[in-house]
Amino acid sequence: MNTLADLKNALRAFAAARDWDRYHTPKNLVMALSGEVGELADLFQWLTPEQAANAMADPELAWNVRDELADVFHYLVRLADKLDVDLVEAAFAKIERNETRFPADSPKPLA
Amino acid sequence: MNTLADLKNALRAFAAARDWDRYHTPKNLVMALSGEVGELADLFQWLTPEQAANAMADPELAWNVRDELADVFHYLVRLADKLDVDLVEAAFAKIERNETRFPADSPKPLA
Amino acid sequence: MNTLADLKNALRAFAAARDWDRYHTPKNLVMALSGEVGELADLFQWLTPEQAANAMADPELAWNVRDELADVFHYLVRLADKLDVDLVEAAFAKIERNETRFPADSPKPLA
Amino acid sequence: MNTLADLKNALRAFAAARDWDRYHTPKNLVMALSGEVGELADLFQWLTPEQAANAMADPELAWNVRDELADVFHYLVRLADKLDVDLVEAAFAKIERNETRFPADSPKPLA
Repeated sequence: MNTLADLKNALRAFAAARDWDRYHTPKNLVMALSGEVGELADLFQWLTPEQAANAMADPELAWNVRDELADVFHYLVRLADKLDVDLVEAAFAKIERNETRFPADSPKPLA
Repeated sequence: MNTLADLKNALRAFAAARDWDRYHTPKNLVMALSGEVGELADLFQWLTPEQAANAMADPELAWNVRDELADVFHYLVRLADKLDVDLVEAAFAKIERNETRFPADSPKPLA
Repeated sequence: MNTLADLKNALRAFAAARDWDRYHTPKNLVMALSGEVGELADLFQWLTPEQAANAMADPELAWNVRDELADVFHYLVRLADKLDVDLVEAAFAKIERNETRFPADSPKPLA
Repeated sequence: MNTLADLKNALRAFAAARDWDRYHTPKNLVMALSGEVGELADLFQWLTPEQAANAMADPELAWNVRDELADVFHYLVRLADKLDVDLVEAAFAKIERNETRFPADSPKPLA
């Protein structure tokens, strides 16, 4: 089974084979991430909450959602790699901070 | 060592303990993802390419970058979980499609 | 009454007085625009459609919405100024193209 | 000469003719704005600062930049209209607040 580490390495190899590391600077990758999140927003923007919740029941929409989630993830993993950040470790460290910021009886979600 | 599956489960437990699943609809999570990517853009927007490339050498900026990458990752993992998408699998499937779209001698990066 | 041209000039003067033109490059301004749209998303992300439709009835939220709309507009006007684009003219030209793309009996909104 | 008020009215008429007001809720319009800003980021993401500064010298890129700026402006004007916010007035009020937050000898731009 593929892991996040495998994905990081596969994306490195993909970029190296195309000489794209010169484009994949942190600043450019943040912009690319904005672009892909924008495409994800595009898929959901006119849906009602109910339609959005059932998005994966529509095969064409489901395919597009998977495709855009993959693009977002690609750039997030590339960006973290370039910045030498371990995403899973950073995410667990943030959960710990959020446990303090938002105690378990916290009425509103984090902004 | 923590895995992406561990993170998905930890985020599920965090939301469940706060009764936040009612907020974590696909549409809302896409907006939350946009918000967090916007905060990441905030950190890099006024940096020169050189400053951005050295972002992690500044301890305060490095801390903030890790913090924002964690927030982006949280919402991406939550969204994929709610949509029942395996992020790593979707990302590898997209690499395969990109191999076709951008042969190894492709001069320009994917838009 | 202030016009869009007045606003463009006021923002020019504001940046000039702080020597901020060196930061206000097109690429940086696009990132700043992403950041501010992210803050706008933040305000609406957990609201139900009904709460969002009544956002301006809550004085604190209304203040924040005006504040964030202003920030988005600032960067959009600055960016268009730096690129020498007349926003109103470009917007009317696009309406004309959309009249063709989406005839008046068009069932779905533009993506 | 067309004004911002003319544009607001033209966009209202465009939506009304297509019965699109049911889609143009504040929450949906914020998402649409994110989507269009993402497309703008797309145009600039791989450009060097120098290439970005000269974007309008390339006729095809210039056309696309105008097109995307128009889309961003459309949704911003629609959103402000739906929320009953006067964009120019809100933008001038924010300049006043920024005058206080960032005195004229302020060394760094607003985040």
